[in-house]
Amino acid sequence: MTGRIIQGRPIAEKIKDTVKSEVDSFKQLYGYIPSILSIIIGDNPEAHLYLKLRDNACRTVGIKSLHEVLSSDTSENELLDIIKENNASNNIHGMLIQFPLPPHFSLNRIMNTLSPDKDVEGFTPRNLGNLLIGTEHLVPCTPLAVIEILDHEQIDLQGKHVVIVNHSTVVGKPLTALCLNRNATVTVAHVYTQDLMKMTQQADILITAAGVPGLITSHHIKKDCMVIDVSIVKTNEGVSGDVVFSEVLEKASWVTPVPGGVGPVTVACALQNMMRTASIIAKGSNDE
Amino acid sequence: MTGRIIQGRPIAEKIKDTVKSEVDSFKQLYGYIPSILSIIIGDNPEAHLYLKLRDNACRTVGIKSLHEVLSSDTSENELLDIIKENNASNNIHGMLIQFPLPPHFSLNRIMNTLSPDKDVEGFTPRNLGNLLIGTEHLVPCTPLAVIEILDHEQIDLQGKHVVIVNHSTVVGKPLTALCLNRNATVTVAHVYTQDLMKMTQQADILITAAGVPGLITSHHIKKDCMVIDVSIVKTNEGVSGDVVFSEVLEKASWVTPVPGGVGPVTVACALQNMMRTASIIAKGSNDE
Repeated sequence: MTGRIIQGRPIAEKIKDTVKSEVDSFKQLYGYIPSILSIIIGDNPEAHLYLKLRDNACRTVGIKSLHEVLSSDTSENELLDIIKENNASNNIHGMLIQFPLPPHFSLNRIMNTLSPDKDVEGFTPRNLGNLLIGTEHLVPCTPLAVIEILDHEQIDLQGKHVVIVNHSTVVGKPLTALCLNRNATVTVAHVYTQDLMKMTQQADILITAAGVPGLITSHHIKKDCMVIDVSIVKTNEGVSGDVVFSEVLEKASWVTPVPGGVGPVTVACALQNMMRTASIIAKGSNDE
Repeated sequence: MTGRIIQGRPIAEKIKDTVKSEVDSFKQLYGYIPSILSIIIGDNPEAHLYLKLRDNACRTVGIKSLHEVLSSDTSENELLDIIKENNASNNIHGMLIQFPLPPHFSLNRIMNTLSPDKDVEGFTPRNLGNLLIGTEHLVPCTPLAVIEILDHEQIDLQGKHVVIVNHSTVVGKPLTALCLNRNATVTVAHVYTQDLMKMTQQADILITAAGVPGLITSHHIKKDCMVIDVSIVKTNEGVSGDVVFSEVLEKASWVTPVPGGVGPVTVACALQNMMRTASIIAKGSNDE
């Protein structure tokens, strides 16, 4: 008997349906459409691809996706001024700063400048701190997608041992907070972990985001483990996650595939966050 | 052969000496003494004991410790107004809201009102978020004390397996961020953990803050584990931590005692934070 494959698309569709009806109510209530601004510097093809995908996703739910495309020689101070301007603008109801940024830019200064109320990606210190405290207002989309998948499968995290393979600010650290807020026992492993297999074998739920195809084999999990593969890596054979899918599937309770697992849910969670910032801006503030 | 006892007092004294000379330089540079305000509601004896201990600690390094004692029927909005007033005051260079607060008060609203630049305890969302990101400006004192002890023992956390028994916002969650920022593998266990012993036995470094005397026995650790006992519980036999000290000491590499371990270092870290807020206020802002 093999485990189940948890497809992300139906979960994403359900979230998007909710967002769509929220957008409709919002339009009725406030008389305008939520407008989200993506700020992008230079002509990095991958960044522009993300922009295009975001435009498409916004279109499906009725959110207006605006762009501010800055030339690659934009200075950090110019970017900060543009962020401040849009922080204050009544016509912008959420913002994203598209990565990658020029290497000498201080992400810290940028994230301390972006208004937490317009922080669609949940990367500003105030929103990350609220997450740590347990007030989950605007949470980074990828960790949120993992929780949406677990919620969809009706998994109560309390007392479960969750092993997370990633300790970045974008995925591992906010995901750790989300799991601790739900009273899971959490182990965070990463590239410096001495015996990865010993850690992953303990997992009731394994969430891997290492970006290393083939990292997680059937030997890395115990029987009936639930496996969420967050990684998306381009290889010669196409897009891949960390998990050796066929063999892990045989031993696991269920596994999310790559592509088609966490990815589409992350996009849906971004839309959800956009509606959240738009509501905060429309209502006043989030400071509770 | 038994392990070593790591006394907190000498570590605390070293930190306090540094703070003292910082206070002296500050006075020379700015012409005034850093003044820290403790806001306290009602006449909870334990709260007033903490206030007295803080006064004494401040006196030893030359920081001015001011009090605002509010009557027990103070409303939340009155407290918020007082916080805002002192956020704006040029004569207050750091603030603490003394717990416990009346039970119906929203800690969340209070911490979102307190200026992050004056947040001596590092409990505001912005400071906690910066900690999560890896920018350790104003970090909660107890987790910081744990790191000070590890630093004093010249322990490089990278690749070490740290097991933390606590998942609160005051200790466990910020401590997790501190350890992940230093590339430790981290397991966070707590009251919902199904097999605590299985977790603690894996620890290279065990940090326990459960508040349960007798919780950690020699069976809970592997040989040569480093053990930091954060708990302080009043019992009939005096003050106690979580660790059964004598038997754990025989197996461990070293153990911090209770009292006299983490406690004094935490007080010193609070003084360190006071100097940090005073410097931020004197210089302008912390927003980098």
